[in-house]
Amino acid sequence: MRTLAQTETEFAPPAPAPAPSDTGLGAALRSQFPILDQEVNGRPLVYLDNAATSQKPRAVLDALSRCYAEYNSNVHRGVHTLSAKATQEYEAARAKVAGLIGARNCREVVITRNATEAINLVANTWGEQNIKEGDEIILSVAEHHANLVPWQLLAARTGAVLRHVRLTPDRTQLDMDHFRTLLSPRTRLISLVHVSNVLGCVLDAAYVAEAAKRVGAKLLLDCCQSVPHMPVDVSTLGADWIVASSHKFCGPSGVGFLWGRYEVLESMTPWMGGGEMIADVYLDHSTFAPPPARFEAGTPAIAETIGMGAAADWLRSLGMDRVHAYENEIGSYLYERLSAVSPRVTVYGPKPDAPRGRASLCAFNVEGLHATDVSTLLDFAGVAVRSGHHCAQPLHRELGVAASARASAYIYNTAAEVDAFVEALQDTIKFFDDAHGGAA
Amino acid sequence: MRTLAQTETEFAPPAPAPAPSDTGLGAALRSQFPILDQEVNGRPLVYLDNAATSQKPRAVLDALSRCYAEYNSNVHRGVHTLSAKATQEYEAARAKVAGLIGARNCREVVITRNATEAINLVANTWGEQNIKEGDEIILSVAEHHANLVPWQLLAARTGAVLRHVRLTPDRTQLDMDHFRTLLSPRTRLISLVHVSNVLGCVLDAAYVAEAAKRVGAKLLLDCCQSVPHMPVDVSTLGADWIVASSHKFCGPSGVGFLWGRYEVLESMTPWMGGGEMIADVYLDHSTFAPPPARFEAGTPAIAETIGMGAAADWLRSLGMDRVHAYENEIGSYLYERLSAVSPRVTVYGPKPDAPRGRASLCAFNVEGLHATDVSTLLDFAGVAVRSGHHCAQPLHRELGVAASARASAYIYNTAAEVDAFVEALQDTIKFFDDAHGGAA
Repeated sequence: MRTLAQTETEFAPPAPAPAPSDTGLGAALRSQFPILDQEVNGRPLVYLDNAATSQKPRAVLDALSRCYAEYNSNVHRGVHTLSAKATQEYEAARAKVAGLIGARNCREVVITRNATEAINLVANTWGEQNIKEGDEIILSVAEHHANLVPWQLLAARTGAVLRHVRLTPDRTQLDMDHFRTLLSPRTRLISLVHVSNVLGCVLDAAYVAEAAKRVGAKLLLDCCQSVPHMPVDVSTLGADWIVASSHKFCGPSGVGFLWGRYEVLESMTPWMGGGEMIADVYLDHSTFAPPPARFEAGTPAIAETIGMGAAADWLRSLGMDRVHAYENEIGSYLYERLSAVSPRVTVYGPKPDAPRGRASLCAFNVEGLHATDVSTLLDFAGVAVRSGHHCAQPLHRELGVAASARASAYIYNTAAEVDAFVEALQDTIKFFDDAHGGAA
Repeated sequence: MRTLAQTETEFAPPAPAPAPSDTGLGAALRSQFPILDQEVNGRPLVYLDNAATSQKPRAVLDALSRCYAEYNSNVHRGVHTLSAKATQEYEAARAKVAGLIGARNCREVVITRNATEAINLVANTWGEQNIKEGDEIILSVAEHHANLVPWQLLAARTGAVLRHVRLTPDRTQLDMDHFRTLLSPRTRLISLVHVSNVLGCVLDAAYVAEAAKRVGAKLLLDCCQSVPHMPVDVSTLGADWIVASSHKFCGPSGVGFLWGRYEVLESMTPWMGGGEMIADVYLDHSTFAPPPARFEAGTPAIAETIGMGAAADWLRSLGMDRVHAYENEIGSYLYERLSAVSPRVTVYGPKPDAPRGRASLCAFNVEGLHATDVSTLLDFAGVAVRSGHHCAQPLHRELGVAASARASAYIYNTAAEVDAFVEALQDTIKFFDDAHGGAA
């Protein structure tokens, strides 16, 4: 394991961070999340696995229930009352998602199962059409597997070359100097994570978009960890596509979206064939509907899309600026308190006062302990954190570890929960130290 | 419009069909479907659009609610209590689906968004690997678009030849004599609808499976309209793959499944890339998980899969034999009553006493009326039927019509509802006749 200079050799407990007031947003929202009001292993649940999946407010659960209990029906193809209502609500949900991300045209929102499918859709349509042997695709070492494997499969089919932006020397974020050196007239596509699900670093999207434009490359941004947590406005972001998953932004599982500039979507050939995506079907050939229908083959995730729309509206009603401000607060508190637990704790990614800040998640390791053991012991104390490679094996190799534990907060988490997590982590470290004769 | 001899020129009102007792299964189950207890346009809802999507019993809605309200969490990648519970329930749902279709190995069940995706999955994996120029794929003129377009796209990429089984001369079902003439050593794949969503005819699956075996072709069966309504046992069916959609068998939308024989699934390369489907990811390449994970990239439709499992269990608790027996009863009653409305009514597909029976759905037209107008007028009376091409444009061309109306029953429908539908249809015909000066 390589050592990380900042945390392991120059450790100094930071000044105590000011605790966010528990009369703030987190406390105010909790009653809307029935799942949070439970005990796990005899202790109040502290759910800090939000980067994997968020919980759903009553508004979303009610939208789901209403759909199934009041007007469940197939969409687009029926004239009866239930079908008309389902269609109206399904398309209204598309508009709500468009509203959340500042898309001026709801036909730019394609409903998918999740962000993973959305990236695969682009790789299998635009990618198949436009990527040729020797063309270059710029990714990064910090990408989620969903933004690595589809391009590997495409490269294997086409002979394209994958280039990976490396980390800065302190390994806290993507190295924009290195990114610059990868740009070339052969660059056809840049596909990068907007907010890293491990480092928590925030991409300089404006800079990358400008660079993409300069070399004539398309830009896809993986916004799974940004759309739920901060204002994302596609009208100014400079991307050609963004992707996100509903289940990470307070919506149901089984649904997500691809946003694409309409002229780009319109240039893309169909991927999956079936109902809904066609204009006319003959035995030997078919003609296809315009986007977004072209990319939505078969009966969609109707109730789930409606739930995703309710989640988008709920977040907008809070205000994404307010969400972001609170997450900065709780995220900084989480970072500072976690970093202060012990010099043996390494928190990956930039400090909260980095130029573009950091997300309200902390992937970390405790020297001498396995991430899985840490996660297991925390669970005994009711604290839910994830451990593993977080679908970012190459990044973990860069960090010199096989796995990490990750505590990720969302708007409904409180400072008291961060305190409970930190206490439980202190107990966990003590437990293992005692078990190993107090050695460290 | 071509005339259909049986119904238009030789019409004789059939003997009154015995009405199924409303103390039977339909009436017994209704209290479990809260959505059915409502008025539409001031009349009790008569939901006869089940071939498009079914309603969900309380057991399924409760399973969904429990997931979101009690243990919602991401699966497979976490050790904390909620994640372990979600993983356990998700995998239990896979086993429940396996149980419903007689699969001995739950790893043969791949969770997809819907049947459409499942067919596209096979086309884009097994198809890409095995179909070469000049190879032949046997489909039929009665296929749903989902079983036409993916193969058209594959044929366009590979130069494969599509052959289509035509209808019998009376246009009520697939012509097995014609099917035989299409078989050749070049046949690599046969992909047919098990139960037609328009004709209601039931494929002689055993015969087709035997033929497929004889020529060494693989067999895919589109079981969207069979799995919900009759016993389907993959251990004796003879297919290599079957597909179905949860939302048609009392489960949530946004989820369905592909079943495949394990050795076939194992031979298939990945399609979508991302988390869950990998073994190890490096920057330049990845290794892949065995099935079913290999085909489930990204966070799955967790709650929806759990709901699909609950639906599978609920159907099994009724007994698929009992479901099928009741549907035969209500389906025959629907067919007989509808056929007796007027000599101007054409019901497509075989008679209920055909050798393999017919599904409890009736696609029909009333001479001189547009299907959409029929459907719209029925809706005024609270009766929900679908109108259009039902994602089977080529079949409608074979039938000589652009569209049809379709009344499709399920286990919770009652004879009284069939009566209400028939009365409303009689009123509808009278309304249009009166509006046109009584002409017909």
